[in-house]
This record gives sequence, C-alpha cells and structure tokens, in this order.
Amino acid sequence: MTLIQEKVNQAIEILKEQGTDIWLTFVRETSGVRDPALDFLIGANDLTWPSALILTRKGEKIAIIGNLEKDAVQRLNVFDEILGYDTAVSELLRDTITRLNPDRVAVNTSRNNVHADGLTHAMYEFLREYLAGTPYADRLVSAEPIINAMRGRKTATELTRIHKAVEITDEIYKKTFDFIKVGMTEIEVGEYMHQLAREYGVGLAWPAENCPAVNSGPDSPVGHNGPTNIKIERGHLIHFDFGVKYEDYCSDIQRMAYVLREGETEAPPEVQRGFITIRTAIEKSREFMKAGVTGNSIDVISREIIVDSGYPEYPYALGHQLGRVAHDGGALLGPLWEKYGDSPNQKLEVAQVYTLEPGLAVPNYGYIGLEEDVVMTDKGAEYLGEPQREIVFIQG
Amino acid sequence: MTLIQEKVNQAIEILKEQGTDIWLTFVRETSGVRDPALDFLIGANDLTWPSALILTRKGEKIAIIGNLEKDAVQRLNVFDEILGYDTAVSELLRDTITRLNPDRVAVNTSRNNVHADGLTHAMYEFLREYLAGTPYADRLVSAEPIINAMRGRKTATELTRIHKAVEITDEIYKKTFDFIKVGMTEIEVGEYMHQLAREYGVGLAWPAENCPAVNSGPDSPVGHNGPTNIKIERGHLIHFDFGVKYEDYCSDIQRMAYVLREGETEAPPEVQRGFITIRTAIEKSREFMKAGVTGNSIDVISREIIVDSGYPEYPYALGHQLGRVAHDGGALLGPLWEKYGDSPNQKLEVAQVYTLEPGLAVPNYGYIGLEEDVVMTDKGAEYLGEPQREIVFIQG
Repeated sequence: MTLIQEKVNQAIEILKEQGTDIWLTFVRETSGVRDPALDFLIGANDLTWPSALILTRKGEKIAIIGNLEKDAVQRLNVFDEILGYDTAVSELLRDTITRLNPDRVAVNTSRNNVHADGLTHAMYEFLREYLAGTPYADRLVSAEPIINAMRGRKTATELTRIHKAVEITDEIYKKTFDFIKVGMTEIEVGEYMHQLAREYGVGLAWPAENCPAVNSGPDSPVGHNGPTNIKIERGHLIHFDFGVKYEDYCSDIQRMAYVLREGETEAPPEVQRGFITIRTAIEKSREFMKAGVTGNSIDVISREIIVDSGYPEYPYALGHQLGRVAHDGGALLGPLWEKYGDSPNQKLEVAQVYTLEPGLAVPNYGYIGLEEDVVMTDKGAEYLGEPQREIVFIQG
Repeated sequence: MTLIQEKVNQAIEILKEQGTDIWLTFVRETSGVRDPALDFLIGANDLTWPSALILTRKGEKIAIIGNLEKDAVQRLNVFDEILGYDTAVSELLRDTITRLNPDRVAVNTSRNNVHADGLTHAMYEFLREYLAGTPYADRLVSAEPIINAMRGRKTATELTRIHKAVEITDEIYKKTFDFIKVGMTEIEVGEYMHQLAREYGVGLAWPAENCPAVNSGPDSPVGHNGPTNIKIERGHLIHFDFGVKYEDYCSDIQRMAYVLREGETEAPPEVQRGFITIRTAIEKSREFMKAGVTGNSIDVISREIIVDSGYPEYPYALGHQLGRVAHDGGALLGPLWEKYGDSPNQKLEVAQVYTLEPGLAVPNYGYIGLEEDVVMTDKGAEYLGEPQREIVFIQG
C-alpha cells in the first residue's frame, strides 16, 4: 500500500469517527496555489483545471478532473471513480454532490490550521455558486477536524520517515560540531551543513536561506534568520536551528555549543544556568504530555519554569507539530495569543509528533534554545532522538 | 537593484496607472499555503505568523510581521516601514490601514487568475473582522488587475532568464534526439532528459513526474502524464512536452520526432499533413498577436485552421502565459469555456510571454503537438527560440 492509499483510508475512518458525510477538496491550477491536503490525496502531482477530490464516510473515493489528467490520477490507484470533463466542472460537481446527498460537506477552510485552509476565497465563492439551488450550498463546514486528525495521527510509515530525518539531523550536528573552529563565519558553518545534507541525499525542512539558523554570540539576530558574516569567537554561545526532509517528512532540532575561552574547562555559571533552565523546561513539559490534555496546558509548564527562573517570557509557542512540513498544524503547545487562534486549546493525541523548543538569552554570551522532537504514545511523549543533555564545548 | 525591488517598483507604477490606493497581501504560515504574490514581494522567504505586505500608490512599502522575522525582511531592502508584533496582528493592521485611509484595498482574490488568488477564505474572513467598524472592510477589491499586469509585463531581467531557459531547453532537445534509439522506453528517454537538466544546473518547469512528457506512438496516453514503459518503435510519432526553470523562470516547449520505417526517407503523408497543420496554426496565430487584441481572438485562428483541416478541436487553450511558473495567469489564448473564466477576454500587452501549443492526433502514428514560446513586442509576437519547422527524423 502506498502512503497516499494509507492516508486516504485513514481519512475515511476519520470521517466515520467524526460523522461527516463527505470531505471535498476543491482546487485548480495547483502549481499556482497548492492546497496542502493534496499531498495526502495525489502526492506531488499537480491538477491544472478546476478539480474536486471527494472522500465519503461510506468509503467512496471520487475524483472530478480535466480529461487530460485522468490517466495520471488513475495511476495513483487511489480513486475508484474518476469523472473527466473538457470545458466545465460545475455540472459534474453539482450532480455528484446531489447524488451523494450529504448532510455536511467538509471543505478546506480553517481559522486555526493553515494546512486545513487551502480553499481560496474565490474558489469558495465558485463552490457556493455551483451548488446554488441545491440544499448543499448551505451545508459547507470546515474540514479542519478531519485534516487535524489525519495530519496529526502519523502512520507507521510516516513515523519511520520522521525517525530517519531525526537520525540524519543528529549525525549532521555531530559532524558540524567537529568542523567548527574559532574565526569561521556563521555562513561558512551553514554552508557546511548544506553540504552534509546533500551528501546524505536529504532536503531541508524549510527554505535554505534560514535552514540552518546559526547564531554565534550576543549580537547575532535570533529568529527566522539565516547565518550572517559574524565570526565565531571564544566566549560565544552558538545556537543552531536545523531540520532535514527525508522522503517528504521533516525533523526540526535546535542545538547549543559554547566556545571555551582560554583557561576555561566549562561554560560560565550564567551560561550553565540558562542551559539547565531550558533543558528542565523541555523535560518537565514532556513529562506532562499525554493524550487528552490541551496544548496550552503543556506550554504553561515550560513558560512558568523559564519565568520563575527570572528570564523573560519567550514570544512564541513552546512547540508545534511536525510532519510533512516543519511547522505542521493542529494542536499547538502554545499560549492563548490571537496569532495562534484556537490551536492551543486543542488536545494531544497518540501518534502526533511535537517539537519542544523554549528559549532565553544570556547577556553577553548569546541565545540559548534547544529543540527536541517527541512522539505521543500511550505512555506519553517519547524523544525521537537523543535529547541534548549537556552543552557541547568547542575548543577555543 | 534586485529583481524583487524591480517588481515592487513596477507594482507601484501599476497602482498609479490603475488608480488603486493600496495593494494588501495578507498571509500566514506560508510554508503551508503560499500566496503566489510572495515570490515578487519577499522571494523564497517564508512568513510564519499572520503578516501583511502593503504597497501604496504613493510609493509606501510597509510590512507588518512577527518580530522574529523583522531582520530577515529588513535584509531584502524592499520595505521602508517594518512593523513587528509578538502576539496579535489585528490592531497593527487596522491602525495602519486607517492611517493610509484608502478608497480601495486590493486583496489577492481572483476568479480568473489563480496566481492572483492567494487569499484563503478564512484569511478573507479574518481581514473583514479585523477591519470591522472601519470604512475599509467594505472597500476590499480584487488585486487581479494589478497582479495580471505585474506578472505579465516582464522586466528585462525576467526576459533574459526566460530566454536562457528556452535556450537550454533547445539544447536538451537536440541532445535527446541524438540519444534516442528504437527499443528504448519513454521512461528511459525521460530519465536522460532529467540527467541533462541536472548537468545544465537547471530545475524543471513543472513536477518531474510528467516533465518531460514523452509519447511514443498511438497508444501512449497524451495529456499531463509522465513517460511510460512503451517502447519506441519504427513508424512512431514521438511527442515531447518539456520545460526547465532557470533562475526561477520557465520555458515550456513541445517537439516532434518521427521514427523512420525501413525504406522511408520521410514521414508518411498523413503525418506530414498533421505536422504542417500544427505548424501553420502556430505561425498564423503568432502573426495576428498584437497588443490590445483579446486572447480569445488568437485562439479562434488556430482552432479554425485545425478544424477546417478536418481534425477535431483540441480540448484546451491554444496558449498560456509563461513566467515564474509554466502556466502563468492573466490573459489566455483560449476558448470561452467555463473552466477558463474571463481570461480569454483579456487583452495582450507588450512584454508578455505566451506559449502557442495546438495539437491533433494522427491515427496509427501518434499525437502531434508543437509548443513555441513567444514574447510580445511593439511589432507583435516574436519567437523566443528557433521554432520547429520540420519534423525530426529518428533513424529506425
């Protein structure tokens, strides 16, 4: 069974579980605007003309597509019914929905999860027009709960790929730590990591411009930035944020190194204290993760540990889900801020994969952020790789 | 000046020309759903949190983004005003729009051009909510005319890149014709073309699965399909559809070869007739292309030549625009079918790049389709490369 077949079958089980009659993905010219749900329905293929991919809780799998794309979709062995057209999709779509007579039609619009939000405003309006005069125009609901469940609950195949991505990332980090010398620029280190990724035959988990982030010392701009010409110096904290994409699945890991000054055999106390605080925040948060609790209830644990230790609150979420993209959607281990919508109120489920990534700054030394990837099991959250328990020392 | 700076300045000129006060691109987590307009505003970068990129006809360039992405956006040297936030975008966005006090706010929603349709339905609703209570919620209009003009009118930099993409495509075709031998499969030919693209250091203009298309003989499925295990035989027409991406800009070219049978020194009369019909349809259509005429008025010329010659009407448009994607939007050389919306009624402009790609089947031999790329000038449409004037013969 292909991964697409596996995920489509899973989606049908989710439709049954949620009592939703049909899930409709309605798209056009997907080389221009690509609905993220397509990865699970047709893989890397594109659809050129207005197309409707329909799954029903009875198990039907229907594709309404341009005739010239019938063969390509047929070859996926996913859809049982492939309806082609040459000039207009509207009638075929209306007739098909009418035949299925659904109580609710879930479409890809979502306030909380961008990955469930592939339906553009114009396509939404077309859909309403095409269904005008039927009862179905007013039965459109958000497919967010379906997509959250499907993207979140990783199959064994998906978990194997993420595991492998984490493993390769760990190896690249190890080689990078051996490579670093005082006087190198952040950019040189970043380029070496790109070279290693090519050697491992993997892609990057987000655009190469800022994957990896490499921040050496207190003056390097932390955030979603690429490496700069800042040179690695003795007494610098070096912060990394990096992930790879292995067979379409991502890792996302932050690591810390410290460049020893002459005479030093370990990091200064304030650096050690910062590192231990972050490490503790991750470990304690992970211990409380279990199916059924909200993402916010985990974020507050980490946030409290950091703030109680006297550091400022980090201006982002503790962790996000991980999958085909580094920032996957659905339940978020985050604070209740407008920018996160309702995601922090959603509940953790078994087989989801999360990052845990608090951070803080140590004045004069740099930024400390660690990021571990964990998978939800019956017993709670388990690390997907070996977490960083001690700061890496670079000999100055 | 970078290409992004060039296109942003062009967009501001277009705002003046069209009398639109502001163009607002409103996005979030663009690694999930990516508004195609972002390529022209921030290049390959992604934005994580809800973000608003605003250009005004007075020339203001404003970015409202998460604080952690301020440095990365600053480095583009595009936006004069970068407003950052940590938790909520709504107030900053409302205040900024109120300060600008526009009569019309163009947003990326479009019935006719998918590349002007990056605003999802949920993001449209957020925008209406954030502007509720101001006069601006009801002043949203489609940015389609702005984006059509900006994507369509290629700058010198863009034209140079497309020229280069066409040139490399021609070279890859020449090498492929020398490579082909009877008995090879379509897949083997496709893999050779992929290898050549890698050697030239270029990407593919659309997903590798069906770039190139290679159709050998009458039984190969034509359309948006990849190569199959069908073997090249004497007496086969071989049809190719292929394009490369050179520095983000695409070519899109179809070519024809015929495998001579024993004793043949040229193609059979029905094959020759088909080829000449397609070649004539392209040349005649091109001759009538000039600024100000509608795309449909060109499509009908080619369609009539094919149909008058006794072939069935091809079920797609004569040609589309070409740019950062193979199927770029805006004016289309197409028939007035529902699936094409209003695009065939839009007018040709100088500096647009189009494909011309009619097709027909020759029973027992295969499919004949040629595709040439042309640029609109003051004098009309000019070929970007050398058009195929004669069928390529493969020695059987």
